[in-house]
Amino acid sequence: MDACAIGIDLGGTNCRGGVVGADGTLLAQRALAVGNRRSEEAIVALLTELIEALSSDSGANGASITVVGVGAPGLVSHEEGVIYQCPHYPWRSFPLSRLLQERVGLPVVIDNDANCIALGEARYGAARGDRNFWMVTFGTGIGGGLVHGGELWRGDRGLAGEVGHFVIDKNGPPCECGGAGCWELYASIRGIRRIVAETDTATLAALLAKAGETLNALTPERVARLADEGDPVARKVWADFGAMVGVGIASLVNITGIETFVIGGGLAAVWNHFIGAARTTLTEHIYSTIAPRVVMKRAGLGDAAGILGAAAMAARKDGGR
Amino acid sequence: MDACAIGIDLGGTNCRGGVVGADGTLLAQRALAVGNRRSEEAIVALLTELIEALSSDSGANGASITVVGVGAPGLVSHEEGVIYQCPHYPWRSFPLSRLLQERVGLPVVIDNDANCIALGEARYGAARGDRNFWMVTFGTGIGGGLVHGGELWRGDRGLAGEVGHFVIDKNGPPCECGGAGCWELYASIRGIRRIVAETDTATLAALLAKAGETLNALTPERVARLADEGDPVARKVWADFGAMVGVGIASLVNITGIETFVIGGGLAAVWNHFIGAARTTLTEHIYSTIAPRVVMKRAGLGDAAGILGAAAMAARKDGGR
Repeated sequence: MDACAIGIDLGGTNCRGGVVGADGTLLAQRALAVGNRRSEEAIVALLTELIEALSSDSGANGASITVVGVGAPGLVSHEEGVIYQCPHYPWRSFPLSRLLQERVGLPVVIDNDANCIALGEARYGAARGDRNFWMVTFGTGIGGGLVHGGELWRGDRGLAGEVGHFVIDKNGPPCECGGAGCWELYASIRGIRRIVAETDTATLAALLAKAGETLNALTPERVARLADEGDPVARKVWADFGAMVGVGIASLVNITGIETFVIGGGLAAVWNHFIGAARTTLTEHIYSTIAPRVVMKRAGLGDAAGILGAAAMAARKDGGR
Repeated sequence: MDACAIGIDLGGTNCRGGVVGADGTLLAQRALAVGNRRSEEAIVALLTELIEALSSDSGANGASITVVGVGAPGLVSHEEGVIYQCPHYPWRSFPLSRLLQERVGLPVVIDNDANCIALGEARYGAARGDRNFWMVTFGTGIGGGLVHGGELWRGDRGLAGEVGHFVIDKNGPPCECGGAGCWELYASIRGIRRIVAETDTATLAALLAKAGETLNALTPERVARLADEGDPVARKVWADFGAMVGVGIASLVNITGIETFVIGGGLAAVWNHFIGAARTTLTEHIYSTIAPRVVMKRAGLGDAAGILGAAAMAARKDGGR
C-alpha cells in the first residue's frame, strides 16, 4: 500500500479535502459545507467526518493514510498547532491540531491556508523552481504566504503573511480584523463591490440593471462578462481594482524585496481584466531600477493548491518526501 | 597591533566614519560634509579622503585597519557591492565597492544604511539578544532593516527593507521615490511639517509665532519643547505623528509577523512625545491576540549605530569575529 497524506483546505464556507499520493496525485476528493458548524467543537467534528469519509474512499484504492495536514484561515501557529484568532470564526487560541489528532488517531499538522497554497504552488504549480516568492490569493479576502530560500517564512511565531491587513488607506473604513483601511477592503470581491458602489448613483443603477443583479449579488464573473461586452463602467471597475492590487504588491516589494508574485484565489480566474492596470500601478510605486525585475504570474493549480500543499506539508513533517 | 575595521555611515548631508576595534570600541571618529560632492566620482573621492584621515588618526594609536564597511542610503546590493538607485543622489548602478577598493587598497563591503544600523543595535545596542526584529529609523526619511534568525534579511537581491516607501495612503501626494502616499511622507520630519501645515491657518500662524520659526525651519525639537510647555497644538501634532508611526508598524507586523521593533533615527530623541499614540494606533490595527506581544523600544546607540554596524559587517565579511 502506498503511504498517503490527507490534505484539507478549511475555508469560511466550505471544507475541502483530498487523499494525496507521494507524487501529488489526488486519489480521492470530498467537500463539506461548514454552514452553522462554526464553533471549535463543531469544526473538529466536521473535520473528523471529512477525514473518515476520505479514509474510507481511499481504503478502497489500497492507500494507507499516515498523516493529515490542514490549511486554516486566520492566525495559525504551525509550530504550536493552534489557531489564535480568525475574523470569520468565533475561535480563540483553538488547539485544533491536538483536538483533531485525538479524534482521528493520526498526526495532524496545521498551517495558515495561504501558506498551504504557497507550498502547493511551489511543489506542483506555477512557482516550481522559485526559491523566493509571495503567494497572494484574491477572493472574498486576501491571503498571503511568503516563501524565502525555498522555505515558508513564519515570522516570530508562525503568524506571518496576514497581508490582507496592512493599511493602504490611513483614512479608510473599518475592517472586520479590528483595524481600518486594510488592503483586503479594496483588492477583494468586497473591494469590487465597494468600487462599484462608489460610482455615481445613475451609473451604478445602469450597471446593475445591465447585470441583472443587486449590488450584494454582483459577482466578479458578471463584471468580467460586462467588461468583455465592452461596457465602459465595468472596464473602469477592473482598472480601479487592478490599481488596488498593484499598490499593495508594490508595498510588498518595497518592504520585503521579493520580486516574484504568484496570484491565486477566486479572482485569478479573471486576471486578464485587472493585471494590466495592476502592473501599471505597481511600476509607478516602486523604484524604476527594480520594476523590470518584478514578475506577476497566475497560480497554476486552482482550488487544488490548498489540498496538495496541506498534504505536502503534513507528509514532510511526518518524515517523508 | 589590533586588527580594526573602518565603519562609515554615508547620509544625505554628512558622511561620518570611525575606526572600530574588535570589541566595538570607537578608536577614532571623523565627519565630512557632503555638500555639492554628490556625483559617483565625487563620493568615491570624499570617502577616500575620510578613510585616509581615519587611517592616519588610528595609525598613531597602533591600530591596523584590515577592511572598510560603508552603510549607504538607497537600493544597495550588498552582494554585488552596487548602489542601484537613491532618491537623494544622482546615482545609477553605482559600483561603489569596487571603485573605493581600487582607491584605498582595502576590501570594501557595502550595505544599506539602515541594515548597518540594525547590525550595530543587534551587536552592541538595544537589540542584543533579539533574534528577530525590525530596525526602523525615523528622521528626514524612514529607513528599515529586518533581522530574522539573527541574520539580515536581504530579499531577492539584497534590496529589502525600503520600508519608507510602502503606501499608507492610496490617495496620497507624490513622493520623491516616484511613488505616492508613502509612509515616509507622514512618519518623518517632513511628515511633522506636513501635519503642522495641515492645521488651520490661524492655529498654524499662532504655533509658528510661538516657535519663532517658519514652517520649513520648524524642527521636531522645537515642537517637542512647545509640547513640553503644554501647547495643545504641539501636543496634537505629536499625537497625529504617533498615529502615523503606529499605522505603519502595524502593517509591518501584519505582513512580516515580526513582533519586536527598535526605533532609531533623529526622532528617537523625542520618542516620549509620540510613542504612546503610536502604541494606541498600532493596537487598533493588529489582531488583539498579537497586540500584547509587540514590543517597541528605543535604539541605544544613537548616531554611532551606523558606524559600528558597518564596521561589524565588514569585519565579519573579512573573516574575523
